[in-house]
Parts: sequence; C-alpha cells; structure tokens
Amino acid sequence: MIVILNLDAADAQVDGLRRDLESRGLIVQDIRGESKRVLGLVGDTSSVSEEALQRVDFVERVMRVSEPYKLSGRHFHPGDSEVALPGGVKLGAGHFAVIAGPCSIESEAQILSIARDVKRSGASLLRGGAFKPRSSPYSFQGLGLDGLDLLKIAREKTGLPIVTEIMSIQYLDVFARDVDVIQIGARNMQNFPLLREVGGLGKPVLLKRGLSNTLDELLQAADYVLMGGTPDLILCERGIRTFETATRNTLDVSAVPALKKRSHLPVVVDPSHGTGYWDLVYPMALASAAAGADGLMIEVHNQPECALCDGQQSITPALFDKLMRAIGAVRTAIEVN
Amino acid sequence: MIVILNLDAADAQVDGLRRDLESRGLIVQDIRGESKRVLGLVGDTSSVSEEALQRVDFVERVMRVSEPYKLSGRHFHPGDSEVALPGGVKLGAGHFAVIAGPCSIESEAQILSIARDVKRSGASLLRGGAFKPRSSPYSFQGLGLDGLDLLKIAREKTGLPIVTEIMSIQYLDVFARDVDVIQIGARNMQNFPLLREVGGLGKPVLLKRGLSNTLDELLQAADYVLMGGTPDLILCERGIRTFETATRNTLDVSAVPALKKRSHLPVVVDPSHGTGYWDLVYPMALASAAAGADGLMIEVHNQPECALCDGQQSITPALFDKLMRAIGAVRTAIEVN
Amino acid sequence: MIVILNLDAADAQVDGLRRDLESRGLIVQDIRGESKRVLGLVGDTSSVSEEALQRVDFVERVMRVSEPYKLSGRHFHPGDSEVALPGGVKLGAGHFAVIAGPCSIESEAQILSIARDVKRSGASLLRGGAFKPRSSPYSFQGLGLDGLDLLKIAREKTGLPIVTEIMSIQYLDVFARDVDVIQIGARNMQNFPLLREVGGLGKPVLLKRGLSNTLDELLQAADYVLMGGTPDLILCERGIRTFETATRNTLDVSAVPALKKRSHLPVVVDPSHGTGYWDLVYPMALASAAAGADGLMIEVHNQPECALCDGQQSITPALFDKLMRAIGAVRTAIEVN
Amino acid sequence: MIVILNLDAADAQVDGLRRDLESRGLIVQDIRGESKRVLGLVGDTSSVSEEALQRVDFVERVMRVSEPYKLSGRHFHPGDSEVALPGGVKLGAGHFAVIAGPCSIESEAQILSIARDVKRSGASLLRGGAFKPRSSPYSFQGLGLDGLDLLKIAREKTGLPIVTEIMSIQYLDVFARDVDVIQIGARNMQNFPLLREVGGLGKPVLLKRGLSNTLDELLQAADYVLMGGTPDLILCERGIRTFETATRNTLDVSAVPALKKRSHLPVVVDPSHGTGYWDLVYPMALASAAAGADGLMIEVHNQPECALCDGQQSITPALFDKLMRAIGAVRTAIEVN
Repeated sequence: MIVILNLDAADAQVDGLRRDLESRGLIVQDIRGESKRVLGLVGDTSSVSEEALQRVDFVERVMRVSEPYKLSGRHFHPGDSEVALPGGVKLGAGHFAVIAGPCSIESEAQILSIARDVKRSGASLLRGGAFKPRSSPYSFQGLGLDGLDLLKIAREKTGLPIVTEIMSIQYLDVFARDVDVIQIGARNMQNFPLLREVGGLGKPVLLKRGLSNTLDELLQAADYVLMGGTPDLILCERGIRTFETATRNTLDVSAVPALKKRSHLPVVVDPSHGTGYWDLVYPMALASAAAGADGLMIEVHNQPECALCDGQQSITPALFDKLMRAIGAVRTAIEVN
Repeated sequence: MIVILNLDAADAQVDGLRRDLESRGLIVQDIRGESKRVLGLVGDTSSVSEEALQRVDFVERVMRVSEPYKLSGRHFHPGDSEVALPGGVKLGAGHFAVIAGPCSIESEAQILSIARDVKRSGASLLRGGAFKPRSSPYSFQGLGLDGLDLLKIAREKTGLPIVTEIMSIQYLDVFARDVDVIQIGARNMQNFPLLREVGGLGKPVLLKRGLSNTLDELLQAADYVLMGGTPDLILCERGIRTFETATRNTLDVSAVPALKKRSHLPVVVDPSHGTGYWDLVYPMALASAAAGADGLMIEVHNQPECALCDGQQSITPALFDKLMRAIGAVRTAIEVN
Repeated sequence: MIVILNLDAADAQVDGLRRDLESRGLIVQDIRGESKRVLGLVGDTSSVSEEALQRVDFVERVMRVSEPYKLSGRHFHPGDSEVALPGGVKLGAGHFAVIAGPCSIESEAQILSIARDVKRSGASLLRGGAFKPRSSPYSFQGLGLDGLDLLKIAREKTGLPIVTEIMSIQYLDVFARDVDVIQIGARNMQNFPLLREVGGLGKPVLLKRGLSNTLDELLQAADYVLMGGTPDLILCERGIRTFETATRNTLDVSAVPALKKRSHLPVVVDPSHGTGYWDLVYPMALASAAAGADGLMIEVHNQPECALCDGQQSITPALFDKLMRAIGAVRTAIEVN
Repeated sequence: MIVILNLDAADAQVDGLRRDLESRGLIVQDIRGESKRVLGLVGDTSSVSEEALQRVDFVERVMRVSEPYKLSGRHFHPGDSEVALPGGVKLGAGHFAVIAGPCSIESEAQILSIARDVKRSGASLLRGGAFKPRSSPYSFQGLGLDGLDLLKIAREKTGLPIVTEIMSIQYLDVFARDVDVIQIGARNMQNFPLLREVGGLGKPVLLKRGLSNTLDELLQAADYVLMGGTPDLILCERGIRTFETATRNTLDVSAVPALKKRSHLPVVVDPSHGTGYWDLVYPMALASAAAGADGLMIEVHNQPECALCDGQQSITPALFDKLMRAIGAVRTAIEVN
C-alpha cells in the first residue's frame, strides 16, 4: 500500500502514523520527493482501512498496490478453473459452453420448444427467468416458483442443466435443490448477504457484473461467493452503463481478457442484455468468442402468433442456429492461431 | 407511449401490431413523416412492455411519454410530503433536518459522545452503521446487532431518533422494532424484494440512490417501497459514479431540484459519501442546502487517540458545529429570497 | 419530432406554438393522453431548434424522431461506401485493411524498420504520429513537420500509403499535399472548423470518435466533413471514457455494428488506444474483426536497446505478424458463416 | 512516480530498468512486498513517460504521485489569483462576478435589451455567442463577426466587458482586439494549438471544462494557456457527461472546492449549460455560490413575440433579477459563517 502525504505534514505527525502502522506488523518505507512524501507499506495490509488512512488530514491519497481480491485472483490460483456441471457439461479451462433460452419463462410450451431448439443447435445449458428483477413495480415480475417448475420440466425432457436467477435469500432452499447453476443478477452483484448465502450452497454460481461495477469490485464480489465454500463460479459480463444511448448498455468485451488476466475463473458474456438490440447480439456474440470468452449467454425466443408479446423477434431459433455455427468457426480460428 | 417505426415496415405488419395494441384498449394514432412512421399510443400503457415492442423487427425505438413511476410522482400527489418522526422531528414540506453520526458504530463511548455533540449542534437524527456493506469481504463488516444495541442506548440518552441501514430481509423484525428510520443503501436500491418488505413494515424509510441509477429508476424504486404501504419515505442523493477520480463519487446536487420537480417526497443529500473527502463535505453541504434539499446526512467523527483508526479526521464535532450555523444562514438566505 | 407538453398547458398557449410551427410548413398532429399531451411534427424539422422548443415553459421534453445526420446516414446512401487509396488499397464494402505503425515517429530508422515489418505481415497502411495531442504541455509533442518527412520516406521505401493526425488548420496545405489519409483525432471530433476545412481538401479522412461522444454525434461530425466535399471518410472507434479503470478506455466494440446499421461509411477500430494495455490489443483486435469492422488501426513498436523508451513492448512486429494471421482466420470464419 | 512490478520480473530486467531511470537523474527506491515489487522514483520525473513505462512487460501499473500540472497548481502559487477586467471588474481572491447574457446574439435590439437588464440587476460582464459550436452542421452556427460587432455595441452602451467564445485560430487577431475575456468552450478544452495561441494574446481567458474531462486534465489545459504568457485565466465548470438523462449534463458542483483546493485560479460555474433546464438554473446557481464559486455564467433571454424562438423562456430578466438578490444573500451567509 502506498500512502501519499503532503510535504507540509509535521514530522511528529508522520512519526505517529508510522508507529501506528508498524504496530500492525507492517514495514514502512519512507520516500521523500520534491513535492510529496510517500510511505510504502510492506506486509499484510488487509487490516489497514484505506478509508481511515484517507481521512488522516496530512494524507493526500492512498493507493493499494496488491489486488483487493484473493480467492478469485490468479496469484493464489494460477491455472484456469473449470466448472463441471450435470450431464458432463464443462465450462472454463478450454471448455466453451453456450447458455440459451428465453428472457422470461411464459409457459410450458414456450420453454419446451425453445429448450429443444437450442439443444439441437448445440447449446449446453438452458436459461430462463422465473424471478425477474424489474425497475418498475408495474412490470411483469416473472412466474416465480411456477416458472421454476416449468424450467425443471424442460430439463427433464432435454437433459440440459438449468440456469436461473435468485433474487432473495427466501428461496435459498428451493434453488439449492432445483437449480443447476444459480445466477446472481447485475443488480445483486453487491448484495453481500445474498452472495455469502449462495456461496454456501455448494452449487455452481453465475455472477453477473453490476451495471457500474469495476472489474476489481466484481472480483471482490466473487470472493464473497468463494468464501462461502463453492469452488464453481462463473463470471458474466453483461454490459455497463455509459453515456451512449444507441445501445441499452455498453458491452465491455475487453472485460473478458482483462478478467482472465486477473482471475482463474471462467468468463461468459451476455450480449443480449449487453446491447439490448437483437441485431447487435449476433456480431457481439462473435466478438466475445473472438476475445476469448469461455461461453455465452444468449436470449432466444420462438414465434408465437401474437405480434406484440414476442413476435418477429430477437434471436429466433433459426438465427441462433446460424450463430452457433459461426461461433464454432470463430472458436476454431482463434484456437488454431 | 411513442413507437417509432421504419418507413419500410409493411402495412400488413403495422396493421397487425396496431390491432394488437387496440385490443389492449389503447387508441393508436398514426403519424407518417418523411423518413419514419410513428405510432402514438393513448390510454393505459402500463400493460405494454417497452422491451417486447422494441423487439418487433420493424420497430426502431420506443419512448415512454408518461413517467414510469406513479406513487412517488407529483402527478398523483401535487403537494410536498412531510415525514413525521419520533420526538417531533419533521422532514419535508418546509421542514429541514440534519442526520449526523459516525460511519460505523465502534463502541458505546464513541456513539454516545458523537450523539451528544451532534445533538448540541442541532442535528435532529442520529445515524450510525451497524451492518456495513463493503466491497471487500476482508473489510470490517460492522458490529451488527451489537451495533444496533449501542445505537439504541445513544437514542435513549439523547432522545435523537436513529437511522441505520438494513442489508437483508433476515433482520426485518429487529429493524421494525428498534429503528426509527430504516435506511436502504445505494447498493440495495434495486434489491426489489427488500424494498417491498421494508415498505410493508410501517416504518419511515430512507432510500439512497444507487451509484449509477437514474432519477427515474430511483422513483420507481420508491414506488416499490410506497406500494408496501408506508407513506413515510425520504429520498437520498449520495453521489453517482462518473469518470472523475478527484472525488470518490460525483455528488449530483441537481438531483435535488430535479427530484422535487418530479416527486412529492422529501430529498436529503449525503455529501460525506457523495464526495469522499472530508474537506469537500462542508462546501457541498452548503451547496445542497442552497439547492433546496430538505435535509442532510453527514458523517461526524470524534478524536480517539489512535491516529490511524480515525484521528485528525473528517468532520469533527467542532467543524460540524460551525457547519450547522452556516447551513442555518444559507437556509435563511434562500427562504427570504 | 415529438414535443411532449404538460397537460396543464393552456389551450391558447398551445395554439400559439402550433401556429408558429405550422407557419414553418410543418404539419402538427395533436395527441392527448391521460397525463401528457404530445405534438407530432411532420415535415422538414431541420429549421426547428430542439433547444428553443425545450425552453418553452409548458414543453416538458422534445424528442427527435429522425436521425440528426444526413450525408453519413444509410437513409440517403443505402449501400456500403468504399474508400479507395493510393497503391490500390481499398477499405469498406467488403475490403478489410489494417493500418499499423508506431504511436510517435521517433527516427528514420525506427519508422522504416516498423514500416517494412508491418508491410511484410500484411498491413495496408502506415500510421505514425508527427503532431501528438498531449494532455500535458510538458510531454513530448511529436516531431511535427520533421516527423511528417520521415513518414514520407517510409512511404517511398515501402509503398504504404500514410495516415497521420492533423491538429490545426495551420497545416492544411502540408497535409493536403503530403498525407494519404488525414486523421482527425478523438479530441478534435467536435472541432468543427477543422472538420469543415479538412473535408474540403479532397483527401480521404479518418475521423476518430471522441472520448465521450455518442454515435449520433460522431455521425453529425462526419456530416461536417462530408459537407466539405470529400466522399472518402472512415470512422474509427477508439474507446470511450467510463468509470472502469482496469483499461485506459472502454473499447466499444458494439459501435461497429451499431454504426454500420446507421451509416454507409467504413468503420475501423483502434484497440491500442481503446484498451491502453498491450496484452489486450491482440484479443480486442480479433473481437473487432469478428464484430464486422472494416479495418483495424494498431500500434506496433520495434525493440530499441533502451528498456525505458520502448523496450519489451506493446505489440512487437513478431506479435503483430501472429495477430495478422489470426485476424485473417477470424475474417474467413465470419465470411463463410 | 510509483512503478508497480510483477513479482516474477527477473532481477536482471529490473536492474536494466533501474539503471535506465537512474541515468535520467532519478533516485530509485526499491520496495518488495509479498505479491508486488514497487519502484519509487524521486526527482524530476517530467521526462519519464508513463505510457512508455506502462509498456514495459513486467510493469503492472504506473502511478504519478505529484500533480501533472504546474502553473495552475497551488504548489507554485499558494495564494488565490485575481483577474482584473476593464471597468474595474474583478474576479477571484474574494471578488465575485456574474457573467450574463443570451446564448446566441440575434440582433442589436436583443443584445442591447438584455445587456441593460442584466447590468441593472448587477451582472458584471456580458456574455453572448457569436460563433456557436453545434453538434449538427444543420443548426444555426451564430452570426459570426456580425455578432461580435453587436456585442461591441452593447459594451459601448452599457460599459459591461464582453465574454465570447473563440472557435478557431483564424480569428485570433479579432478576438485579441475586440473581446475582453476570450472563452474557450468545452469542446475545445483539449484543442491544444488553440490553447497555446489564445494564451499568447495577453488577454483574460475563460476556459470551460470538457464534457468528459477530469479536473487534472482541465488544469493541464490551463497550463497550456498560462504557458502562453497570460496570467488571467478563469476556470469554468459547465456540467459533465454521465448516464443521467433527467438533466442535459450533470453539473459537478464539487468541482468548485476540488479545483480551488488544487489551483489558485478563480472558478466560475455555468448552471445553464450544466443542467439544460431553465428551472434548474436558479437552484443550481445558488448551490454553486454556496459551494464557493468565484462567479457564475448565466444565460438570460428576453421575451420576443415569437413563442417558438425564445418565448416564455429560460431565465428571463425578471427571474435573473430575483436570482441576483438570492445569490447576494447566499454569498453573505457563507462569508459571515
């Protein structure tokens, strides 16, 4: 940790701070420059609060040199992690998997039809929202437990493991029993009690990056989950909030290599939420694969009669099928080269 | 709601969409421009999903004309709301109140000393963190229920109503029984199950704006709380995440008048978290008061021996006292003019 | 154009506004909803100022329905544009080209060596900074006209057309005479006098997106250039400014398909500035190609003795060579599929 | 400067870098932590490029400890600067001044009427746009030199010094001769050739913060101007670009105390552009004054017959008059306290 002081800090004050830090077992190196004085702290700084240091009035700035995360970092786990799922599905450490399915589960016919379609095209996992986080309380909030039951039926009929989002610790038991990969959504990335509890269930977890969370914060959130005991954690980039309005979010494709540099955990990308426009999903899925993602999470819809609900839509099963072939080709291209 | 279509949409397709919308009781007005065609939907559009419309392939963009919030909006409640608290404290509708106290509760001596100091200077409510949301699992997470007990002691000795943050539905009962104003933190602004549950306790609630949430989203989150039944809701601006690194967050002071234009709810500002630097708290507290805030939430620390933990710190009781007088003067200045 | 009014606007006022708009040749459609009233303006709204309308006190919001750009838009030019450069190089409309070279031109040996290396690996154009826009006046500002001379030597020896940045109208003549593709940098994207002048030189132009400019603003800036008369304009995504600090900028790969949807102009991506870390350039170059970019702009450095200046660096010619092969493979993968 | 290395950097490599740095006259202090190694560079690091260091492959991160600006910094000029203008107007170092006038100059009658009104209410300087930077080439670009002539007439009749924006070095002579305070707009904050040239005219300059520029970048841009020779520079906060759409920009009021902490230069705030909504200008002007701004820049419009152009508008002279009194009261409140 680096502590930058004002040059006009009185020596007695700096000595007091120094003794305080040394009493915590740290070695303090003092560097005096022309306009600043810097203390370099060596040792286990995890007990030192950056915020408390920042409040000391002759301290200008505090910079953490070591990563703020541990369990999710490469430093403690140099090799890539692999998440093994029911049905022999693997993700990470060279294994690429596509998670596909509708945004919300609407009916048995809908989820079954889509599940069969995406399986045929090569998807490895089935997604579907049962509990939906909605900005507006007046929007459809998902079918809840009924939706989960429909998802289980689709798993039974297709063999695809299922991924769905948990929104509250109220349903921990149900999710532990019924769900193959428990998703923590972007809005809950820093719902720390939920992270802890879900990490303690022993089930694989998919953790989405928050709308305005840095990669460092994502990896600290990952540490909350991993501390619970589960080793099976998948990170998911799903777009960040920026000033741009041509897309719903800005999909941060560079998060893939930047995360993989820092962490051993597999990284998947959700271009559907990440862009918000169905015609951007296809190119951005390919871009994510080319950038080295370990998997993709893609919304696929079928064609009901009703024009409004879902018609002429987003990624249809036919377009998804075409996309799966293109993804395969891109994967081959980057593996060979 | 305004639906912008591509000019090359086939008439049959547009007619299908139109019939679909009309079957939901909406009146559809068709406007054909040179390069776009626009459908204006009149009626109760709350059952129409913007996202579903957006997915229709000849739809370019969907714009909601009416506000996405109801209960928190001025349209349904033109006058200002007033939140009445124990001890005769009022906030909103012309009543200004300052909430002060330490970031974290550390000991009985600490919270008592600060509580007495801030009361003497004119604070109306006591704040103090018992459960602390922390980006890092390795940071101090607060004293939890023990912290809450200390806060209650401080309330008993000073008469100040207490404000503290709830992080999980696990503690709903305790908060309902023991806390005067239940705070929902920025990271939980879109923890919808928590919003609903807290809104159902019948206790006053203070809802902080999320780090990257728009005012529209804040007011929708407010609707989640108000739907639970509580009428006593205070909104809190606490800084948003931007590219600027000179401050920890960018305090959006303009959120005060922008929220008050849209909503009847009282708005307070937290310049401590909003700026992250103690020497910016004083000017930004005054700025917030001048912008028309109904109150302020300010971290105040006392001076323990330990230089590191908290020493030579942030807003001391002495500076807070000076600040309270300046706030009073600014309030008088804007009320007279 | 859609003008949203308050419901409490007096009829006489709205009639006045309406007459005013109609006197400009617009057809005004009036839609009355429950909580808002909307005027839909049909006709040529280019003479109507959104800002002026916004200031009318009973107007709540103004939304432009048609795109704010013309010459750069697909509406006026449905097919893809192709930019033809000296030496038979083409970019756009199916032609993919890589622009490579050092950040700054340092010496004849440096630029010549790199030019030969990148040509051998398949680059089509040579880039190199002669005039460098620097946040700090204390940083190296480039070799200026001397740098341009070195670049010309490299062109003569390799046959590669050259791309370099213009920073001031002072050098219009020199650039018109000596440079094959005139680059307008991110910081000058809204330097409107420069855009106009450069657009009048009859030379191909490469226009970089500003750090915090929307795609709509980029295309309006493109219109400034195109209005000058040049038909040969290349757009360049080079990263936008967000809250994330793990990368220098956030490379908005989705800008590629989003721009190509809106505009006929070719789009290239600069992953070097876009990420700021050499080890992210390789994956992000592939991602950009997979997303459908028409070209790439990549910084390549050679290995001088001096460790500090440039050593053990960024993309070396060897890594660039490997990258070019991978890009080719990804291009083939997406073209076949 | 602090250079953070990977622990796996070979000693020979680090020694090479170290020798390189020492050969530039720097003292290098080596700190080895558990997971990182840090080099602290003491001495004049202005010749060391952060970017070059960042490219060294065993370097993880480079952090500048001293401020990147000099002439504008308090370190070199501890006291507040005061800008003296014609007519005895002063700004900074305790002197508060309001700059008011229309967005664009439209006619002699318009500018004269507004100039007289704002003078009567206590404004010290007259603003008015002659050259207007416009995102769209299809928007009104200002009256140009004719507008400047009208502004000069208004100065002659009222005695108010005039402030107007320069957009190109083409008009340096005219501005040097005719304008009292030369404004550099937000879009030109990093138009470095313009900064240099304007700084060399010996005229007071008002430099607006760019839409997405940090305070560090603003102060570096200020250094470009000050290096030209002019000592009279005023900084202006005018709103930054964020995700929020309820306001046109997010006015960063905290930039006022944050800039004044770092710099001796006076800081004014433009709440008109900063918010984009006339009804937010009043409260945000007061907030800026309360935060310690040295002045304000406010758009004032009068009431022409035409409803559309400008009618029922923004800040009218009457509202401006009321605002000036409120500003005075707030200024008194913060000066006394």
